[in-house]
Amino acid sequence: MPRFILQHRVPWRDVDVAAVVNYPRFFSYFEMAELEWVRAQGKDYLGFLEEMNIWLPRAAAHCNFRAPARLGDLLSIEMGLERLGRSSATLGYQVFRLPGRELVVDGQVVVASVSREHFKSVPLPEKLRDLLQRLKDPE
Amino acid sequence: MPRFILQHRVPWRDVDVAAVVNYPRFFSYFEMAELEWVRAQGKDYLGFLEEMNIWLPRAAAHCNFRAPARLGDLLSIEMGLERLGRSSATLGYQVFRLPGRELVVDGQVVVASVSREHFKSVPLPEKLRDLLQRLKDPE
Amino acid sequence: MPRFILQHRVPWRDVDVAAVVNYPRFFSYFEMAELEWVRAQGKDYLGFLEEMNIWLPRAAAHCNFRAPARLGDLLSIEMGLERLGRSSATLGYQVFRLPGRELVVDGQVVVASVSREHFKSVPLPEKLRDLLQRLKDPE
Amino acid sequence: MPRFILQHRVPWRDVDVAAVVNYPRFFSYFEMAELEWVRAQGKDYLGFLEEMNIWLPRAAAHCNFRAPARLGDLLSIEMGLERLGRSSATLGYQVFRLPGRELVVDGQVVVASVSREHFKSVPLPEKLRDLLQRLKDPE
Repeated sequence: MPRFILQHRVPWRDVDVAAVVNYPRFFSYFEMAELEWVRAQGKDYLGFLEEMNIWLPRAAAHCNFRAPARLGDLLSIEMGLERLGRSSATLGYQVFRLPGRELVVDGQVVVASVSREHFKSVPLPEKLRDLLQRLKDPE
Repeated sequence: MPRFILQHRVPWRDVDVAAVVNYPRFFSYFEMAELEWVRAQGKDYLGFLEEMNIWLPRAAAHCNFRAPARLGDLLSIEMGLERLGRSSATLGYQVFRLPGRELVVDGQVVVASVSREHFKSVPLPEKLRDLLQRLKDPE
Repeated sequence: MPRFILQHRVPWRDVDVAAVVNYPRFFSYFEMAELEWVRAQGKDYLGFLEEMNIWLPRAAAHCNFRAPARLGDLLSIEMGLERLGRSSATLGYQVFRLPGRELVVDGQVVVASVSREHFKSVPLPEKLRDLLQRLKDPE
Repeated sequence: MPRFILQHRVPWRDVDVAAVVNYPRFFSYFEMAELEWVRAQGKDYLGFLEEMNIWLPRAAAHCNFRAPARLGDLLSIEMGLERLGRSSATLGYQVFRLPGRELVVDGQVVVASVSREHFKSVPLPEKLRDLLQRLKDPE
C-alpha cells in the first residue's frame, strides 16, 4: 500500500508509570502523520479546512497494540487510505519501531467530513478526495 | 448492564481548535473511570498491580464518536465488563452528556494481563477476576 | 487570602515514568480551577470570553514544585487573586495533597486580556474585573 | 550562550480552542529538548538516570509567553545552562518560530537531583555535571 511516513521520537510526556507509551497517545501520533501529510501536499492544514468550510472529526477509531513503545524510541508512523466513501474516509495506520521495524501498533481511523457550523455530515470536498486518492494510488 | 459511573467535566486542555474534545482524550477518560472503579473497591491502583505482579496494558481499543463534546460539558463515563477471558478482559464504555444523557461516545478496550518484567501475557490474577466479575454481575 | 478551591484526583495520563505527576500538568490543573471558578460565578467560560470579545492567554507562568504528587492522589487546587492590573491580572495558586494538606505546588500565572482578532493587549473588561475583585475580597 | 537546539512542529493535540498552543505544552517542549540533548551526548535518558541512581524532577519552572504559536508552526527550542549548583541546575530556554526567529517563549527550569528511593535531594552526579558543563561552555 502506498503510504505517507512520519518519524517520531517518543517524548517524556507520553510515557506512563509502567514505562511505556500511554496508549491514547498513539492516536495523537496518527494525527501528527495526517498533519504532515497535508503539509507535504503543500497545504496548511487549518487553512485547507477553512477553505473547504469543513472540519474533519473522527467517526470511529481502532487500534491494536502489538508491542510496547518506550521513552526515546524512534517510531515510524505510516499512513495509507483504506476506504474512500462519500462523506467519510478510512485511514489505515501502522507504527513500527526503528531500526528493525518491529510492529508496535496498527489501527484505523474513520474521518468524517462535517460542516463547520453544525458539525453535520457533508460530502468530502473534491479537493480533499483528490488528495486522498493520491494516498491510495500515487501512480 | 451493571456499570461503574464517573462524572467528569471537560477541561481546557482537552479541547482542540475545532472547539471539541480531541478524540484520543476519550480513551484517557476511560482510564479515569477504571482508576476510580478500582478505588471504589477499596484498592490503590498501583499498589494492587504491584501486589499481583502485573501491568494491565491495552491489547486493543475501539471507539465510536457519536456527538462532539465541548469545553465544560459534564460527562458521565460508564464502564461495564463485556468479556472475561483467561489473560485478558474486554471493558465496554459509554459516555453521555449530562443532563439529557445524549450519547457522545461508546467503545471497548481489551485489557491484557502481563508480567511486570517482560510484558509477557499471564493469566488474570484471581483477585482481579473477582473484581471484574462484580462489574459484570453485582448480585 | 480568599480562594476558589477545586478538588482533583490525579489520573493515569498525568503520571510519568518516575511515578510522579509530570510537572507541566500542574499548569493544566490551574486552568481547571479557573474554569470551575468562572462556572461557579454562573458563567460559561467560552461564552463569557466571546461576550467580552477577548481571549485570556497567559503572559507568564511560574511554579515551585515542593513535593511529588502521585497516581490517585486527591489534590486541592486553590486559587486567589494576587494583582489586578489594567490589562492583566496575576492569579496565585497552591496545590495541597489531601488529607493532611501537604503543600505540593505553588505558583502564579499572569493572565492577559487580548483582542480575539489579533491577540493584541486590551483592558480587562469591567465584567471580568468585577469577577476578579470578588476573588480578592468577597466581603 | 552555547545551546542545544531542537526543531519541533506544533501538533494538533497541543492547540487549544483559541487556536494557539496551550501554554503548559511549552514546558513539555523544554523536556523534549532535554531528552534529545542527552541522546546527542550518546546516552539513553532513562538508562543514564538509572546508572546514576537519581531522578531529575523540577524544583521550579518559569515561562514568559511572548507570542502565540499555532498549529503547524515550526519551532526552534533552544536550551542552555544558566546555573550549575551542588544538587540542582538551572536550564534556560528560548523558543523561536522559524523562519524569522520571532521569539515565542523564554523560560527557566530548575532541575533537582534526587534519590530514586525517597526523592531526597542528592548532589548532581559527576557524570551529569560534566555533561551540563559542556552545555555551558563547549570550547
